[in-house]
Amino acid sequence: MKSIQYLEENKQKFLNELFDLLRIPSVSADSKFKGDVRKAAEFLKANFEKIGADAVEICETAGHPIVYAEKIIDPSKPTILVYGHYDVQPADPYELWDSPPFEPVLKNERIYARGACDDKGQMFMHVKAFEAMMANNELACNVKFMIEGEEEVGSDNLGLFVEQNREKLKSDVILISDTSIISNDHPSITVGLRGLSYFQIEVTGPNRDLHSGVYGGAVGNPINTLCDMISSLTDDKGRITIPGFYDKVAELTAAERTELNKAPFDLNEYKEDLGIKEIKGEDSYTTLERVGIRPTLDVNGIWGGYTGEGAKTVLPSKAYAKISTRLVPDQEHTEITQLVKNHLESIAPDYVKVKVTPHHGGNPAVTPTDSKGYAAASAAYEKAWGKRPIPTRDGGSIPIVALFSNVLKVDSVLMGMGLDIDAIHSPNESYGLFNYYKGIETIVWFHQYFSK
Amino acid sequence: MKSIQYLEENKQKFLNELFDLLRIPSVSADSKFKGDVRKAAEFLKANFEKIGADAVEICETAGHPIVYAEKIIDPSKPTILVYGHYDVQPADPYELWDSPPFEPVLKNERIYARGACDDKGQMFMHVKAFEAMMANNELACNVKFMIEGEEEVGSDNLGLFVEQNREKLKSDVILISDTSIISNDHPSITVGLRGLSYFQIEVTGPNRDLHSGVYGGAVGNPINTLCDMISSLTDDKGRITIPGFYDKVAELTAAERTELNKAPFDLNEYKEDLGIKEIKGEDSYTTLERVGIRPTLDVNGIWGGYTGEGAKTVLPSKAYAKISTRLVPDQEHTEITQLVKNHLESIAPDYVKVKVTPHHGGNPAVTPTDSKGYAAASAAYEKAWGKRPIPTRDGGSIPIVALFSNVLKVDSVLMGMGLDIDAIHSPNESYGLFNYYKGIETIVWFHQYFSK
Repeated sequence: MKSIQYLEENKQKFLNELFDLLRIPSVSADSKFKGDVRKAAEFLKANFEKIGADAVEICETAGHPIVYAEKIIDPSKPTILVYGHYDVQPADPYELWDSPPFEPVLKNERIYARGACDDKGQMFMHVKAFEAMMANNELACNVKFMIEGEEEVGSDNLGLFVEQNREKLKSDVILISDTSIISNDHPSITVGLRGLSYFQIEVTGPNRDLHSGVYGGAVGNPINTLCDMISSLTDDKGRITIPGFYDKVAELTAAERTELNKAPFDLNEYKEDLGIKEIKGEDSYTTLERVGIRPTLDVNGIWGGYTGEGAKTVLPSKAYAKISTRLVPDQEHTEITQLVKNHLESIAPDYVKVKVTPHHGGNPAVTPTDSKGYAAASAAYEKAWGKRPIPTRDGGSIPIVALFSNVLKVDSVLMGMGLDIDAIHSPNESYGLFNYYKGIETIVWFHQYFSK
Repeated sequence: MKSIQYLEENKQKFLNELFDLLRIPSVSADSKFKGDVRKAAEFLKANFEKIGADAVEICETAGHPIVYAEKIIDPSKPTILVYGHYDVQPADPYELWDSPPFEPVLKNERIYARGACDDKGQMFMHVKAFEAMMANNELACNVKFMIEGEEEVGSDNLGLFVEQNREKLKSDVILISDTSIISNDHPSITVGLRGLSYFQIEVTGPNRDLHSGVYGGAVGNPINTLCDMISSLTDDKGRITIPGFYDKVAELTAAERTELNKAPFDLNEYKEDLGIKEIKGEDSYTTLERVGIRPTLDVNGIWGGYTGEGAKTVLPSKAYAKISTRLVPDQEHTEITQLVKNHLESIAPDYVKVKVTPHHGGNPAVTPTDSKGYAAASAAYEKAWGKRPIPTRDGGSIPIVALFSNVLKVDSVLMGMGLDIDAIHSPNESYGLFNYYKGIETIVWFHQYFSK
């Protein structure tokens, strides 16, 4: 195909453009980057217009804007809706980066920058595949793009946008590249994603910081109390103790579990890569099951008292933690958030005040493997990678997948191209050059197969 | 006495000079204030020289310097060694201060500033009492001053200084104003102080921050683990679970406990002042006992993961806590530090690495009530306050009291003038104008009675 040829000839240009996008610190979680988030949206708008998209628009929301673009070549042809996000996770701790997070560099065939993989790199593959097909009159399907700027903070305003634009977003499949494959030797398609319930807890003891000598032992310490509460949320079998938490968890059949555990996985490599002596998780489940089909609870951040240099003998007034649970079918995130909130408030001892603030959440999703979209994706991977992809369950969350199937009644296909070593959400996030280009090629083939 | 008259006439001057000292941010814990700590030492040196002290010297140590000054009027007269410190606790959280911590202000007869009470205000009372007596030829005893700059970080270098200067520091009593009285209606003398063992714990899980979705549930989370470990250090009776921790705790007799509980204390006022619904402490001990004669364990600070604005779904690589235990006779701080370190390392699960770094410590101390020094102090309070002071056990730690009795073989008298409402170590630390002036007067009387 000419489009594939075009890709070969424009590799350097496609890389330079991605670097320009990565240089924009579009951190959606931190308000001081608000202007940069918009810059990233404007960058995309300009690029879409340049490569021949129609109806290009920066759609305002209550938060960060959504970039929309489309190309309708023939209403009788199938329509692909591409979803992605141009916002990125905060880059801190900055001191752990080998090179500045927003100054992309190429090192041993890998692109290092915040957002290199999640999701600028993967989202931009669709834009460049579109460019290649447009430039060579090989666009085989109608295509629509919906690229948001709030995925890393819970897509709070996407739901309303989707509901208000059902017509505009009408499509036959939703294509998303925001997940990983097992390895470059084992391409895979994510068919299951976990949901999320994220909240912050604030524990208040005395009305002011106290001298830990004068009051220590006689007044409840909010940090100790927060630790007690957090510790009580899981038992020694690695199970979450919140009443009702597991009620709606769909148990897989023995056959399904066997199938799931067929995915290539080497525990020793896994431990070595993470530098840990032992793994930790829920009893009687494998690592693949623990991240794939089981819900979890993790503290994502904790702080309180004196955290500076040296020592301060303080009994602090407040302690805080950010906690999230990953959810699996058929758990419902608003329901879980309420369960957690009620539970934490109910176990709060009377010598402290506890405030639980729900942050954001999303529902788990399972995508079908018997759809036309999955078949086209499977064929596209096989064509580009020379190997039939394996269906997998991922631990991460893309809440909008559930939203799309509920509101738009359209199934998503998760055509991820990332690898675990990409270290998304971590310092030194990277994306393989091979994956970037191979991803563009795979997308071109998907359009071909889906148009049939 | 003319000295008392002189105090009356110089109140404003004495206040202005204290304000000048309070304006120097001599935070010993934070290296970026190193220069200011020295400034405070130089301020004292200059003041001592101005008011007629001899042998004034800034004595270098491996850390912050010690200011020495003396006046030997007659070798046959008793000698008083005054100990105090010119360094202060860190002032953060700054945002909770009603006025900048290092810009002292006078509000409803109280001095607001970091160090207003602890210990600049209380230490400076001795300097001004000395000035008053010198100016009026009423100095009745020889006096030596040893004012250090590392009390808030564990007095690491004082021990060596004391051992190397036994002769120079020869005295009949050591006078220290760095404690509180029950109330201005109930002057009291601290006869018991708790010891301290302060350490930092670092828990390391994976070798990098991870995506809590991709790895959550399969990899040990260092924050959750730290919370588990901290929570396990105390049981539901409020007792510390570290093996051997209580072995050397001296139990008081029923009679002693009755005596101790005679001190005026109103639990409702206490709770109201702190804004708490309930108190928390070791079972079957009163609040006065919990802070006076029982050891404790408090987390003074905790941090790990994402603590910024918004949400970050990270499974962090590391989590930290600063923890301190308050010790009572006959616990030995180095022994306890070793017990705690061993225990924490022994309970560390194999999916994390745990590093415990001892910070600083000091031994508990009990001072005699049948000494000449105590008698003089008691008489001085009665003269100045019109009430006989009550002997009390304080929760705080002044490790050097034990050091002095061991190395110098001299007993200390803790002539504190502070109040609990002074909020030392907290935002909006303050010191009563009444206590500042009354303290100076009390010290003048002490010199008189002790010279007899």
